[in-house]
Amino acid sequence: MIQRTGNSTLQLDPPVYILGSGSCAGKKEGEGPLASYFDAIYSDTLLGMDTWEQAESRLQTEAVKTALHKAGLQPSDIQYIFAGDLLNQCISSTYGLRDMNIPFLGQYGACSTMAQTMGMAAAFVAGGAAENAAAVTSSHFCSAERQFRFPLEYGGQRTPTSQWTTTGAGSVILGKRSAPVSITEVTFGRMTDLGVNDANNMGAAMAPAAVRTLTDYLTDTDHVPADFDLILTGDLGYVGSRLLRQMMRKAGWDIETLHNDCGLMIYDRKKQDVHAGGSGCGCSGSVVCGYILRQLEAGVLHDVLFLATGALMSPTALQQGENIVGISHLVHLHSDEPPKES
Amino acid sequence: MIQRTGNSTLQLDPPVYILGSGSCAGKKEGEGPLASYFDAIYSDTLLGMDTWEQAESRLQTEAVKTALHKAGLQPSDIQYIFAGDLLNQCISSTYGLRDMNIPFLGQYGACSTMAQTMGMAAAFVAGGAAENAAAVTSSHFCSAERQFRFPLEYGGQRTPTSQWTTTGAGSVILGKRSAPVSITEVTFGRMTDLGVNDANNMGAAMAPAAVRTLTDYLTDTDHVPADFDLILTGDLGYVGSRLLRQMMRKAGWDIETLHNDCGLMIYDRKKQDVHAGGSGCGCSGSVVCGYILRQLEAGVLHDVLFLATGALMSPTALQQGENIVGISHLVHLHSDEPPKES
Repeated sequence: MIQRTGNSTLQLDPPVYILGSGSCAGKKEGEGPLASYFDAIYSDTLLGMDTWEQAESRLQTEAVKTALHKAGLQPSDIQYIFAGDLLNQCISSTYGLRDMNIPFLGQYGACSTMAQTMGMAAAFVAGGAAENAAAVTSSHFCSAERQFRFPLEYGGQRTPTSQWTTTGAGSVILGKRSAPVSITEVTFGRMTDLGVNDANNMGAAMAPAAVRTLTDYLTDTDHVPADFDLILTGDLGYVGSRLLRQMMRKAGWDIETLHNDCGLMIYDRKKQDVHAGGSGCGCSGSVVCGYILRQLEAGVLHDVLFLATGALMSPTALQQGENIVGISHLVHLHSDEPPKES
Repeated sequence: MIQRTGNSTLQLDPPVYILGSGSCAGKKEGEGPLASYFDAIYSDTLLGMDTWEQAESRLQTEAVKTALHKAGLQPSDIQYIFAGDLLNQCISSTYGLRDMNIPFLGQYGACSTMAQTMGMAAAFVAGGAAENAAAVTSSHFCSAERQFRFPLEYGGQRTPTSQWTTTGAGSVILGKRSAPVSITEVTFGRMTDLGVNDANNMGAAMAPAAVRTLTDYLTDTDHVPADFDLILTGDLGYVGSRLLRQMMRKAGWDIETLHNDCGLMIYDRKKQDVHAGGSGCGCSGSVVCGYILRQLEAGVLHDVLFLATGALMSPTALQQGENIVGISHLVHLHSDEPPKES
């Protein structure tokens, strides 16, 4: 059942359970602090394929296969798969999932895609449209660079505010069968445009969207930030995270000690030369479906607000003088597990 | 309430009602046989904007505004808007809808987007996630040509199987309040790849997807083609429509006299030099939200199966040797209106 609360929050009662998850990462991500939490690390940038786009597709295939395996389910048990990515016409999703024979609903939320697909799949299960549904997203450093910025061969200088697109993917299988971690609430976001148009400063473009969705959620529900162990954004990076905390303080909410960002967690910024941090759908996808779900399953975390943010733009739009429009979708991840003795 | 039927069909009971609709078209479409059914026809290709992409965005803005006006609703009455288009990163949707302040869920289904967004919005209303939800899509001949094929200035020769991307948009507002036309069933499709890789023969790439979804629907339910006044595909055009009818006959269903295609209806193929017919999200968007809904409201049609088909591909994927993957989503449009005296 879905209960609408406030303007835009959906409360799922009973909650929708996470039956399985899969996370994949590339070489650089596999050298970072979360390496031990990924289900697979590929040291070959091409994953044995001919092109980076095909490699990214394979990340989605592998993430979904792993999630299905952990859930003990077959593709035929899944009624719908919600998938998206950053590439033109979402081709990583198309080609990565084409052979699975699952009804396919392509989603476009830029880097907010992990939260969007999780939220959509959860709404479909809670609303009675599916017994089980899957969510998946990916990004790849090499395919993203050549599409959004410059060909890698050009060797362009990166600005201090730029972020490093994560090579990785994340997938979850959601369903009605009980499991340790569940999705209890979803808030889908509105678009935000504060006039940022620098494709090398995505964090600044997206932070206002996270502020809007987080305040929408707190206004819709009786929750305060202290109800959560973690308020986790997707890929605001260093610049966007600072902005988010400042803007939330101005809005009357102190989240300083509760906030972290997948883009700040996935790399060691002191050693790995990623400038303002990680980005891309695969950043929050791999961190949430790897590290965060493990912490919830282990009872280390109990309530996490996961807000992925996306920059809705294309190089063509920016060349035509448009701004970068931000969006953020939120899911509340919950676990009742007692902390496990180590 | 949503009742799952068979493998992949959703029955909506009570149904979800179409409270308002809007359709826009360009000059060529405004010279075709359905001209009198569009809410607005723009003879200026740029719609007063600076670029074709901005013009396409404006088509979405106008279609949604018209649909809201006819529904007697404000943007604040709409909980979610489902939107998508053909351009890289779905920018027509982003920039066309950014100022509406409605929670935004970007969809990517290529030319199947009108059926996908209608189906998603219907599932959200029926499942309890929204009181009212909107669906919208668009395409523009000039923005599509330069992105998928050649710059217009190049003046390339068009092949006989090529289709003409419609300049147009369609939008519906769905809700629980009773209205003459409703959505009673939805079937979301699986991807289909039969090896077609000619970007100038989209009809052939997409027809097998329509066959799959239509046979899925007929298998899931007790319906036979004769239960419908019209089985309407989105933009298979002449080549794809012939293939669909042939393949359905092979599968044991004769739909010859019941089938029509928005791409064959929107232009006069004898006079308007569109080769195999119209295509693009805006083709089925403008035809369904213009002509078809008027026929249902007038009691001329009572049961229409609308299947939009999409070609999930990008120029990059085709350059890398990939096939065009097809998909088709279906919505059952129903009206109880008695035929009106003219």
